[in-house]
Order: sequence, then C-alpha cells, then structure tokens
Amino acid sequence: MIDNQKMSLYAAIESRRDVRAEFSGECVDDAVLQRILTAAHHAPSVGNTQPWDFVVVRSPETLGAFARHVEQQREAFADSLPSDRKDTFDPIRIEGIETSGTGVVVTYDPARGGEHILGRATVDDTGLFSAVLAIENLWLAAVTESIGVGWVSFYDEAYLTDLLDIPWPVRPIAWLCIGPVTEFQRTPDLERFGWRSRRDLSEAIHHEKFGRRD
Amino acid sequence: MIDNQKMSLYAAIESRRDVRAEFSGECVDDAVLQRILTAAHHAPSVGNTQPWDFVVVRSPETLGAFARHVEQQREAFADSLPSDRKDTFDPIRIEGIETSGTGVVVTYDPARGGEHILGRATVDDTGLFSAVLAIENLWLAAVTESIGVGWVSFYDEAYLTDLLDIPWPVRPIAWLCIGPVTEFQRTPDLERFGWRSRRDLSEAIHHEKFGRRD
Repeated sequence: MIDNQKMSLYAAIESRRDVRAEFSGECVDDAVLQRILTAAHHAPSVGNTQPWDFVVVRSPETLGAFARHVEQQREAFADSLPSDRKDTFDPIRIEGIETSGTGVVVTYDPARGGEHILGRATVDDTGLFSAVLAIENLWLAAVTESIGVGWVSFYDEAYLTDLLDIPWPVRPIAWLCIGPVTEFQRTPDLERFGWRSRRDLSEAIHHEKFGRRD
Repeated sequence: MIDNQKMSLYAAIESRRDVRAEFSGECVDDAVLQRILTAAHHAPSVGNTQPWDFVVVRSPETLGAFARHVEQQREAFADSLPSDRKDTFDPIRIEGIETSGTGVVVTYDPARGGEHILGRATVDDTGLFSAVLAIENLWLAAVTESIGVGWVSFYDEAYLTDLLDIPWPVRPIAWLCIGPVTEFQRTPDLERFGWRSRRDLSEAIHHEKFGRRD
C-alpha cells in the first residue's frame, strides 16, 4: 500500500474533477491502472451480476479516430445552441482522448447472470446502473492515485461499438480518459466557464413526499 | 471532522456491503445523514445538471406500505424461479425497509438543466447515470460513517412514484434503506448464500478491442 492510497473517502469526493485540459501527456502506470480497475470491480451490482467490462485503449490510431469522431459531435452540439450558450460553450474543452494516452471504455452486458437476475425482474435498469456504480468507484480510486479521469459522452454509440468490436448485446456506456495530470482544478470546469453552477443541497432534500422541503 | 471520516477510499470500497439483516433498529443521526447526502450531492453529473433529489422517508405508515409491496414482488420473483434457484433464493433477505428506520429514495429529473445539456445530446442515458453516480458516493460515505445501506429494487416503479407523489417526468431510481448496523458482513450476502460468486477481474479487462484479453 502506498501512501496516497490512504486518502480519505471524503477528501476524494471533494477533490474529484472531470479532467479535460490538465493531462500531462504521460501514461498511467500499469500497476496503478490495475488498482483503479480493481476498485471498479468491487462495485455493488444487482444480483451480484458484475455486468461490467473494461476495454483499455492505447493504440494511437484508435485514440485518434475516436478524437476526430468526438470533434464532429462537438461541432454538431455547438451548432444546435442559441448564440449566448454557444459563446459560453466555445472555450470549454470536452475531451482529453489523445493527451491522456489511455481510454477505458466501460461496457454493460445485459446477458450476464442469465435469465433469473435477483433484483432486476422489477427494475430492469438496475443492470445498467451496476456498471455506472463501477465507474464512480474507478473515478474516486483514480483521484486517490492522483490520476485524472475525464468522461467523454460526445459520441455516437453505434460508432464506438463498431470501433472496439463490441458484440451484441453488450453496450458501451462510457469512454473515460485516464492519465496523470499537471494539476486538479479546484472548481469544476462547467462552473469556472459559467455554463452551470451548483444547486443548493437543501433544494434536493425532500421529506416523506416529493416536494416537501420543510 | 470526526475520526471515522478519515477512512480511506480503498478501505470503504473493500468493506462496503449491501445490508439487509444487520440493521440495529436505531435511526441514523440527522447530522450523519446530512454528511452522507452531501457526499451524494458532490457526484459528477452530465453538463453539471445535478439531476438527483433525495426523498427521506421515516413515516412508519409509508415504510410499512412499501415493505408489503416489496414482499409481494419478492413472492412473484420466487414463483418465477426453477426449483433449484428457488431453494437458493428462499433464505436470502432482500430488504430492511422497516428495521433500518430510514428510506432514502433517489430520483432522476430528466428536465433539470433545460433543453441544451452539454454531453447528453449524444448519449441521453448520461442523465440517468449521473443520479446513479450520486448513489455510489452516498453508499461509500455511509460505510465511512459505519452506517449500512441496502438498495431495494423489488418494486413496481409506478407504485413508488404514486406512494411519494413524485411528479412527471421525475423518476424514482432507487430505494435505499439507511441505518446503523450491528455488524458489516465480510462476504456479500449473495456469495454467502451461494446465489452468485465473484468474477475474476482478469476476465473483465480487454485490450484495444473487446474480447482481446492477452
């Protein structure tokens, strides 16, 4: 156990950022990546199905192709915005695909666990949710290791499925850029750039029924 | 900051359990619950939308009504199983709704953030994913506070929506039983009871393309 593994949970949650511009250009160490993926693999899952997989992508060709695809999606989104929002969006960086040097694509396999899945018969989405819980474990572990994570969602799912030969019915649910950083921002990018600020927690807490905030 | 807030992230991930039978019957302290919900509220979210809400349920009538509903769903699932799986399922406890004393229902509001959501234009599910990430933060914070969490998914979504007056288009995505525990199990219940065991991490890691495990 190295020292930075002792970072407290609350400190990790507080300092976690979605990293775009701060990747140093070095590659994450294999042993560190293994610890981060081990943390992801210890997530809770419905019926203990562990329906996640992790595709580690480092080929410059694949990273480059995905980066170009994402750039196109970025332009399409920018074009869809009214002009004031477009001005706010323009300087916001949305990916660090090539500079991070490592992409981890998290996938969800709805067939994992067979026909009778304890807890998914009523809420089918709990399968998908399980893979998302793994991502949060991964992200917090990365913070503890001083490694940045940036979740890229500007992509067409069919494109990514094809790019990585992901077989049906497995579904890619996230592209995570993972790598050493020069620094962690203290304020989330979307707050710094004026896109959207924090909601007060008191607005999010309700008592007994939705809407009762007293 | 109290001492147990210093629990390391890796320790929290390792010792996190899905609690059913070990709730002590005491109620979680309000200040502790506030810290746990603060951790949830610091989750990442697509476009910084923070689309989650938390309905704290302690009314014995509501807890009792939901527990009866869940019991019916449990029976329906048991009846759907082949006999060998039914025998394995029988002793597995699936909820601690009344014994935990507190339910936290996490909801997802797809309308939060308006029309132009940075990062959700391409993958709409990232909104839903954001609320799930908040649940993992909540769960790990609870472990750090020695508080148990049990995620109940044996319910009909329309029933729960109605029970808590959740307005359209907001969607309940989890009922979490939250309370002090007598102990944390070392082995997940579904492993202890022989329902399903852990998958090896090496099976979950692929290189460059899905399916390449060398």
